[in-house]
Amino acid sequence: MNNGKNYKLTIAYDGKSYDGWQKQGNTHKTIQEKIETLLSKLENEQVEIQGAGRTDAGVHAKGQVCSVTLYKDWDEKTLLETMNEYLPQDIAVLDVKKADSRFHARLSATAKTYKYRINNSNIKNVFERNYVYNVKEKLDIDKMKEASKYLVGTHDFKSFCANKHMKKSTVRTIYNIQIENMDGEIVITFYGNGFLYNMVRIITGTLIEVGRGEREPSQMIEILNSKNRQNAGFTAPPNGLILWNVEYNNER
Amino acid sequence: MNNGKNYKLTIAYDGKSYDGWQKQGNTHKTIQEKIETLLSKLENEQVEIQGAGRTDAGVHAKGQVCSVTLYKDWDEKTLLETMNEYLPQDIAVLDVKKADSRFHARLSATAKTYKYRINNSNIKNVFERNYVYNVKEKLDIDKMKEASKYLVGTHDFKSFCANKHMKKSTVRTIYNIQIENMDGEIVITFYGNGFLYNMVRIITGTLIEVGRGEREPSQMIEILNSKNRQNAGFTAPPNGLILWNVEYNNER
Repeated sequence: MNNGKNYKLTIAYDGKSYDGWQKQGNTHKTIQEKIETLLSKLENEQVEIQGAGRTDAGVHAKGQVCSVTLYKDWDEKTLLETMNEYLPQDIAVLDVKKADSRFHARLSATAKTYKYRINNSNIKNVFERNYVYNVKEKLDIDKMKEASKYLVGTHDFKSFCANKHMKKSTVRTIYNIQIENMDGEIVITFYGNGFLYNMVRIITGTLIEVGRGEREPSQMIEILNSKNRQNAGFTAPPNGLILWNVEYNNER
Repeated sequence: MNNGKNYKLTIAYDGKSYDGWQKQGNTHKTIQEKIETLLSKLENEQVEIQGAGRTDAGVHAKGQVCSVTLYKDWDEKTLLETMNEYLPQDIAVLDVKKADSRFHARLSATAKTYKYRINNSNIKNVFERNYVYNVKEKLDIDKMKEASKYLVGTHDFKSFCANKHMKKSTVRTIYNIQIENMDGEIVITFYGNGFLYNMVRIITGTLIEVGRGEREPSQMIEILNSKNRQNAGFTAPPNGLILWNVEYNNER
């Protein structure tokens, strides 16, 4: 048996119809399974892929990355075109690159960018409705920005993690949180070395509560220090969230 | 009974789930019926609206306009907010204005803009997939532009009309056809005084055949002169089409 070759795939998907990225016993509607099923057919043997981010049910991706070892000698263009031919309309392969054999989409990742889109208007955006969360009450962006500053840096984000029984470290570094108002749409961009289960959605929910005037920006300090999920805000719905980009060392 | 007041409503919709704009006997899934049903409830009596453009099943609108006479004395903001509260997620009222009693959305219209979006790439756009038509073969935009020039002006567009038994005039004026390539997406913008049944989609299909090299640009002259639908190209699918804007005299 010849040695396999390692590939880096960049994937976009509309997460609406899926139970998230990660393969699970109780559903076949995961993005990982759709891609593995196709690649296994193309390779004539069971293929396993590693995704950089385990996006939740309903969360989208514009720049998910996965790594995979393949044994047929695919050139990049053929693999890209063949995969796009057979994948469903809501999953696309944007790029295929041969990768170093040590490359692992999740373990090699150095930074990730997520975006959360809020339509802060009393008029629905009918075309983007599956990709934005509608909040009618006018949000105070300046207060949200102020609150976000307390979260930037290296912290224990246990209060913003949905997994109560997380045994591994809940310390992460957020390099930047940018909050922009673009024509009534508020876009929050999270840039960090990694994010815990539901972390971006819980931070977003908490920032929305600040924007509504239900919390003071400085409360972020207490929430972080308490290390208790109960003290943070609600979990913003998945449809507004998109995994935007994953970075690797050699690309910076 | 007091006199009604006339209103001009600007409407956006994702046409995917609807059998078109116009109310029909055999379906309740039309945009007109959704809006009339809501307004009739709000007014406590049967309300009829006039739409500027009768978009086909699956066609979208960003700036559809309709006129309606209402007897409750609605202020513009309240009517806008109330309608958006109750309309489905894929229909939105973008603007409400009190209008002159003689204003009629269709009869008063002086110009309309439609856009047709083509994803001319072998990579699907997963987020815009319901709003673009996918054409993989690289289209020759310069030839499409050349062909479109023959259609600009006042012509009998009978060859580009799906209604074989059209008794009224099939003469229309196209002021401009703009074809742009934006990052692999080709957008064709049609600006004219009015468009026949399926006219924009048949012109688009014919231009795509030119872009593929199946027809010469100058064939447009023969197609127009033949006044025969059989000589024009295929009808491009509805999902790429959007009614962009409707103009009225006092706005120009």
